[in-house]
Formats: sequence, structure tokens, C-alpha cells
Amino acid sequence: METSTWQCFVQCIFEFIGTFVLILLGCGVCACVSLRKSKGEGGGWIVVTLAWGLAVFCGVLIAGPWSGAHLNPAVTIGLAAAGKFPWAYTGPFIVSQILGGMLGAMCVYVFYKDHFDATEGAEAKLGVFSTIPAIKNYWRNFLCEVIGTFVLVLVILFIGDEGNTAALNTVKGEHELIGLGSVGALPVALLVVVIGMSLGGTTGYAINPARDLGPRLAHAVLPIRGKGSSQWDYSWVPVFGPVVGGIIAALLYWIVKSMMNA
Amino acid sequence: METSTWQCFVQCIFEFIGTFVLILLGCGVCACVSLRKSKGEGGGWIVVTLAWGLAVFCGVLIAGPWSGAHLNPAVTIGLAAAGKFPWAYTGPFIVSQILGGMLGAMCVYVFYKDHFDATEGAEAKLGVFSTIPAIKNYWRNFLCEVIGTFVLVLVILFIGDEGNTAALNTVKGEHELIGLGSVGALPVALLVVVIGMSLGGTTGYAINPARDLGPRLAHAVLPIRGKGSSQWDYSWVPVFGPVVGGIIAALLYWIVKSMMNA
Amino acid sequence: METSTWQCFVQCIFEFIGTFVLILLGCGVCACVSLRKSKGEGGGWIVVTLAWGLAVFCGVLIAGPWSGAHLNPAVTIGLAAAGKFPWAYTGPFIVSQILGGMLGAMCVYVFYKDHFDATEGAEAKLGVFSTIPAIKNYWRNFLCEVIGTFVLVLVILFIGDEGNTAALNTVKGEHELIGLGSVGALPVALLVVVIGMSLGGTTGYAINPARDLGPRLAHAVLPIRGKGSSQWDYSWVPVFGPVVGGIIAALLYWIVKSMMNA
Amino acid sequence: METSTWQCFVQCIFEFIGTFVLILLGCGVCACVSLRKSKGEGGGWIVVTLAWGLAVFCGVLIAGPWSGAHLNPAVTIGLAAAGKFPWAYTGPFIVSQILGGMLGAMCVYVFYKDHFDATEGAEAKLGVFSTIPAIKNYWRNFLCEVIGTFVLVLVILFIGDEGNTAALNTVKGEHELIGLGSVGALPVALLVVVIGMSLGGTTGYAINPARDLGPRLAHAVLPIRGKGSSQWDYSWVPVFGPVVGGIIAALLYWIVKSMMNA
Repeated sequence: METSTWQCFVQCIFEFIGTFVLILLGCGVCACVSLRKSKGEGGGWIVVTLAWGLAVFCGVLIAGPWSGAHLNPAVTIGLAAAGKFPWAYTGPFIVSQILGGMLGAMCVYVFYKDHFDATEGAEAKLGVFSTIPAIKNYWRNFLCEVIGTFVLVLVILFIGDEGNTAALNTVKGEHELIGLGSVGALPVALLVVVIGMSLGGTTGYAINPARDLGPRLAHAVLPIRGKGSSQWDYSWVPVFGPVVGGIIAALLYWIVKSMMNA
Repeated sequence: METSTWQCFVQCIFEFIGTFVLILLGCGVCACVSLRKSKGEGGGWIVVTLAWGLAVFCGVLIAGPWSGAHLNPAVTIGLAAAGKFPWAYTGPFIVSQILGGMLGAMCVYVFYKDHFDATEGAEAKLGVFSTIPAIKNYWRNFLCEVIGTFVLVLVILFIGDEGNTAALNTVKGEHELIGLGSVGALPVALLVVVIGMSLGGTTGYAINPARDLGPRLAHAVLPIRGKGSSQWDYSWVPVFGPVVGGIIAALLYWIVKSMMNA
Repeated sequence: METSTWQCFVQCIFEFIGTFVLILLGCGVCACVSLRKSKGEGGGWIVVTLAWGLAVFCGVLIAGPWSGAHLNPAVTIGLAAAGKFPWAYTGPFIVSQILGGMLGAMCVYVFYKDHFDATEGAEAKLGVFSTIPAIKNYWRNFLCEVIGTFVLVLVILFIGDEGNTAALNTVKGEHELIGLGSVGALPVALLVVVIGMSLGGTTGYAINPARDLGPRLAHAVLPIRGKGSSQWDYSWVPVFGPVVGGIIAALLYWIVKSMMNA
Repeated sequence: METSTWQCFVQCIFEFIGTFVLILLGCGVCACVSLRKSKGEGGGWIVVTLAWGLAVFCGVLIAGPWSGAHLNPAVTIGLAAAGKFPWAYTGPFIVSQILGGMLGAMCVYVFYKDHFDATEGAEAKLGVFSTIPAIKNYWRNFLCEVIGTFVLVLVILFIGDEGNTAALNTVKGEHELIGLGSVGALPVALLVVVIGMSLGGTTGYAINPARDLGPRLAHAVLPIRGKGSSQWDYSWVPVFGPVVGGIIAALLYWIVKSMMNA
């Protein structure tokens, strides 16, 4: 195999494993605090938001030095739009992320199977997998996903910037990657925590197409007792909202940087 | 444009964006835990205080290496009073911070619009924007804002000090800036968390004129359903209290440092 | 004494002290939030999961530079299986860890004696010492311990990897150790926090044979008022589940690394 | 003034300011979560324990590079007993710490005055200042303070040790100081958090004579409405327990280190 194809393949393996761990822990906390008889039942918003942030942290610890740990199609597209990632790799990265998310959610189901069976209500079960808006309003929900992901990608772009690079690993491979190591992973994790706490109240903050679509696919195919609808009518919101938000962030970043070099 | 005017302009852009993100996430968490039907409703004091601290963290990640990430007129004035920031830049910095805060709060309103509409009570709505004292008592409330901001600015001044500079970025530009990068941003964030937890009980810890005045201006101009008064009678407390607290901290810092060089 | 025997002995002393502190703080938080009249009673899942993570943090701070701070037979076996630790040392390490855990749990009993006496219910008392599954189902519970420990050891192996070594201390002794210092200890602590939050709902996440077996032995021998059964029928799950999970993680790590060197 | 006397005086100023901030924030959180009408009322154990840890963090940020930031007579005595601090300085350090604690508590009273007046119950008011055991039992409570402080000082000694010194500032002055800067302050803060969460349930974890005696003196002299007894009968426990715990930790540290150099 050609070197760059091989390199892309290895990076996709890491995106897959990293997103798998992200969703195993992320959907895991949703199961833990919401399913009946779980020891974490009723753990509340603080547990959900901290755990999602730390789930990103773990994914970045695994994949950071190898693939840059995007773990999120909106980040991949945003970095590409900002000229920090090759467009040719975006397809394989996104597929790996969605498959990793799907497997992670399936693993959560097997893990919490007895608690799924002990829980009533189709929405409670879907809520472990995918996001469900608090007040359904497609365009408002879409806007919320745009804004949440805008903040995510904007801050990530600035974290990867000159002034902050002390905490980042050295650049790897042929093209520039934001290689976040065990120290560099913390700011991104805390960023995800605060986006959840502050901007998660309306849609449950997918801010990541792979985080929502992967588990929704898992929900659709798994034989969950009394599972109800996978709510595909809403599924476009947490897919396209984050992508649009990521692109807008890249655009603003590009404008600010251009202005500074003027 | 002259170099130093251009430099000031660029720094103001970063103060604007940084304060925008700070208030988007900060007022965002107030909306998230207090508005009806939000997924974070009832998240409590732990969520509010952690999120405000992490909101500062995100603002510093963006603006830190470029403008020093004051994001707060009391910090700007305190640093100037301590001789660590040029007085000539204070005006533009403060205007940028207040405008950033105003836009951030407007964005929170658009984000949580459906939940604002679902919530009864004018004070609950104002509370998303500005601080409201638990027990109204102008001079006590003023004193509380003085003390809270005194702690904030005092610790920031010592963080920027020789003994702690290992975690700080190198000095940038013509005059000395406290350039906090992605690692250096954490102590300030944790400082804001604990000030909230410990000294936030009385006034809701504005400790930042831009954090209170910007959103209050937004509240005044936005067409919020059943919004009630913007409580301008109280508005001077979270503006002048922090400024006085910042100056006292700078004074104490100056005394201690002078004594040590005696 | 021969040098390498002496070295192993010293490392075992640190494993013993480190695991002692880990369990003193870990079982301590279980006592603190669940025993009657404790000031932390009802502190909830957030307190339990954060404290267990920070308990690991403290253990690593003590033992990290000297023994590598495994503090967990599943980590010791996983590192050995990944070729990162000598098999000859595994026996003494594991014994030291279990003895440290046993002593730590005894110390918790003496500490909270008056609160044990004030608490009704044998399960509430056993729950301070050992894990009790939320829904008893041996093979599902076993699987949960496998998956939880798989995540733990997999991420630890990647933290210790080339790309992340900036935060690690230098290698010590004759064979390679993952020497985590005061900075390097944080990622592992946060990893344990999120495993608890996300994957702790079913079995209470032993993910460490010494964490469960040591305290269960303490429970069996201590003269606790109204203590009830030590539930030995379940005790194999939190011993063998973690070991299997650690070995699978080492295997996956080995496969991925081999593939990359292909 | 002689150089070393001057040096000691400057260090005492920093111990005073650092302990003042520690107690202002520490007793502040007790007021915030327990006094009536406070915005943080009912914030719970998670808020109390995190804030105390972060209060230590802030104190260390201020005093760390200058005095080593003991902020605690048990740490001062423990370091002296371990041969890491000169006995001649212990007296002035301890007096500065207690005075700082007393002033910090007075400041909390002025800050939360209106909420003190709104709160019923003498114990609720004393609880903002000093520790009150959950179940009074002098020798058990004493033992708890010994064990809690033992863990505190033991881990601090190991943090200051060779293997972990990467995160520490360089040694200052004529004698060896543990100079913890803005990065090095985090482990100590997290250590205090977990000691609170795990070992705080019985006595409320003074683990610091200055933390308890300083505020108790403030309680005794302040004209608090309906304040009741300062409970001096219990006051020896949180003073002598921590000192004994610190000395035992120093002893164990000394034994382990001696053994390793054998």
C-alpha cells in the first residue's frame, strides 16, 4: 500500500477506537444516570456534563498523538475548512467516526442490558443513544447545534494556534495535525464540559454528527425491548447543525487570522 | 494605521470575541439551570459555578495569547493600577468587553428563546442576564462585589508574578502582558470557580462590570416576553464594586512588592 | 540482598502504601456518603466518582516515581501482558496491593466506627467495603467488569505511549516503568472518574481486584456490629473480570502497535 | 534588620495573606451553602469539598513561590520534623497562619452579615467558622483528625520528592522550601478535595489548626446576633490532632526514605 494511504488507514483506526471509547463512555453516562436501578440513577446534569467532557478526554488520550483525535466530523470539516487538514482524508475519517460511535453505543446496550429491561418508556431508552430536543422546534434546535459547535470548533482552532502551542505535541506526518497529548487533552475536555453545562439545555448538545448518528443507527438495528421510534425525522438536526457550526467557526477564524496578517 | 493603534485594535477584537464567548457560556449556564423545561434545569450551584469558571477558561484560551484575556474591566483597571498595563489602552479594552458581553447575552436569548417563553416570572428572566442580590442592601452588596473582585485580581496579579511564570506564555508586544495560554488558563478558571462557590451567595458574584452591564443592556433592548424591569437602580453596584475591588488589590500588591524590594 | 530483589521489595512497599491510601480514600468516600449522620451523607454519585478518581491520584502521587503506581493487579497483569512489566514481579506486586487494600479498609472502619454503629442494614455496611451489583447477574456483571477494566488499561497503555510521554517521568530501574509524577497522575485520575460515572452503574466498578478483595477480606475479619454476609459468592466477579479486561486491552494494544510497525 | 530575619518576616507576610485568602474562601463556602437565603444554599458536599480544595489552591498561588505556602501549622511542623524546614521559623509561621485565618473568618462574617441575621440556630452560625463533629466522641474525633492530616502531609512530602519535582519551582532562599507554583498547586488542591470527600464525614476535616483555631477566635470576639457557645471544649481536637498526624506522616516518610538509602 502507498505510504499516504497506509497513513490514512492507521489514522482512521485511531479515529475509530477513539470515537468508540468516546461514545462508550458518553452514552454510558446517559445510561448510568437515567436507567432504572443504576447506581448512578439521578446523578444529574453535573455528572452528565463532566462525563461527556472526560469521555472526549479519554478518546483524545488514545487517538491524539496518532490521528489528531478529531472524533467528530464537524471538527474534521472545520479543520479542513480552516486549511489545517487535507480534504482528501475527511471522508475516511468521518466514516470511521460514525462506525466507532455505532459500536460504542452497541457496547453500552450490552453493558446496561438488564437496566434497559428494567426501564419503562421508549424515550428514556432512545435518550441513552441519541439526543432528543427539550422543546421540539427544528430550526431553533438546528440553530442551537450550530452555535454549540461553533464555540467548540472556534476554541479548538485557537487552542491549536501559535500562542497556545506549548501544550501541544509536535506536528506529525506529512500534513499539519493538531496532536493533543495527555496534557493538551485537558482544555478540549473542559471545553466540552462547559458547552454541555451552558448550551446543552435545549437539544442535549450533540455538537458532533458521529455522536448522534452512530448511536441512532445502533438504536435502529438493536433488538431493544419496547424501544419505540428512532426519531429519524429529527436526525438531520444534530448532523447538519454541527457541520454548519464548524464551518462558520473556521470562517471566523480565517477572517481574524487574515486580518492580523494584513 | 500606526502600529500601536493597530495593535490595540487587534487586541480589542480579541477582548470582544473572548468576552462574547465568556458571556455566551456564562449567561448560558444561568439559562440552562433556571429556565423551564431545560435539560439542565435544577443543575444547581455546582453547575453554575463550574460553568462560569470554565467560561472564563474558554475566553482565555481564545484571547490569552493575543490580548492577555482580561475580559473584565476590573482586571484591566487593576493591571493598569499595578503598572502592568498601559492606561491608554484601558478605554478601548473596556468598551470591547462590554460590547462582547452584550452580544453574548443576546445570543443566549436567541438560543434559549423557547425556554424563556416557557418560563414565568420577570426576575427569573432577568437573572439569566444580570446579577440580582439575594438580600438587597446596596452598601453590603457593594462591599461583597469589592471583596470578591479583590480576591480575583489579587490572585491574578500573583499568578502573573515571577515565581509562577513557568506556566505563562512569553511576554508579547511592546508592553508587558500577562499572556495566559492553554495551561496558564486553568488557574484563573479555578479561581473564578471558587470565588463563585464561596463568595457568590450574596450578590451572585458579578466581579466583572462587563459581565453585568453588557447583559443588562441586552435585557433592556431585547423584546423579551413579560420581561419586567432591568433593575437599573442596582446596576451601579456590580459596575463600581468590581472596579474598587480591583484597585484595592493592585494597591496591596504594590505595597507587598515594594516592601520586598526595600 | 541482591539488587533486583531489593528493588522489587522497595517497589512493593510503595505499592502497599499507595494502595493503602487509595482504599482509605476510596472506601472512605463510600462511608462518607452512605453511613448515617455523616456530614457527607447523600453526597451522591458525583462525590463518589470524583473521590475514587482522586484517591487514585493520591496513590499515584506517592508511588508513581518509585513503583510505577499500578495499585491494581489488573494493571500489573495488563502491563506484563503488553510487555511493559516483568512477569517475575507480578506476584509480589499483587500481594502488596491486596494487603494495602485490606489495611486501608480496616482503617476506614476504625475512622467511621461511630457511623457504622449508627447505620442499619448489613448491605449498607458491606457496600463501604466491597462492590455489590445493582442487578445480580453473574455473567453480565462479569462482562461489565471486563469492559470497565478494558477501558482503564487500554487508555493507560496509550497514555504511556510515545506520543504522550511528555507528561511522564523518566524511566527508572532496570526495566521499563510508567513513572507518573504529579502532573502525569491527573489523566489517570480523570480516567477513573469517567469510568465510574459512565460504567459504574451496574456493578459499582471494582475494575481492580485489590480494591474489592482487600476490603472484602477486611470485612470478613473485622468485628462489625450487625455486619451480615461478606457475599463471597460474588467475589470472583470483581477479581477475574478486571484481570480478563486488562489482558484484552493489552492484546488490542499489542495488535494496534504491531500493525503500525508492519 | 538581619537578612534571615527579614526573609522570615517576608515569608510570614505571605503565610498571613495566603491563609487569609484560604479561610475567606473556605469559611466563605460554609456560609454560602448553609446560611439562609444564600444563592448557594443547599449546594451540598460537592460544593463544600471542591471549594475548600480550591481555596487552598488560591492560597498556594499567592504564597507558594515566596513562603512555600504551608498555610497550615501541621504542614509546617511536619516539614520541620521531616528535616525540610528550619525549626526556628515554625513559631512565626504558625502565628501568621492563625492570625490570617482569624482575619479571613472575620471578613466572611462582614460579607455574609445579612445572611447570618437571616439564619436561626447557634450551631449553624458556629459551623461557618469552626468544625463541629457529627458524632461527638473526643478520642475518635481526635483519631480522625490525625488520620486525615496524616494523609495530607504524607502526600505533600511525596509530592515534594525527587520523582515529582518536575512540577515544582526551584528552591529559594537559604534553606529548602517546597515552592509550589501555579501548576504545582493543583495536586495539593485536589488532595484537599479528596480528603474532604472521603475523610470529612466525621469531624468536618479541620486537618489544619489555623483553619479551626483562627475562625474560632473570630467567632469568640465578633458580636454575632444569637451566636451561642464557641465550643472551646472541643477546640483542642482540631489543633492537636492535625499536629500529631503531621508528625506521624513525617516519621513514616523518614523511615521509608532511610530504608531506601540503606
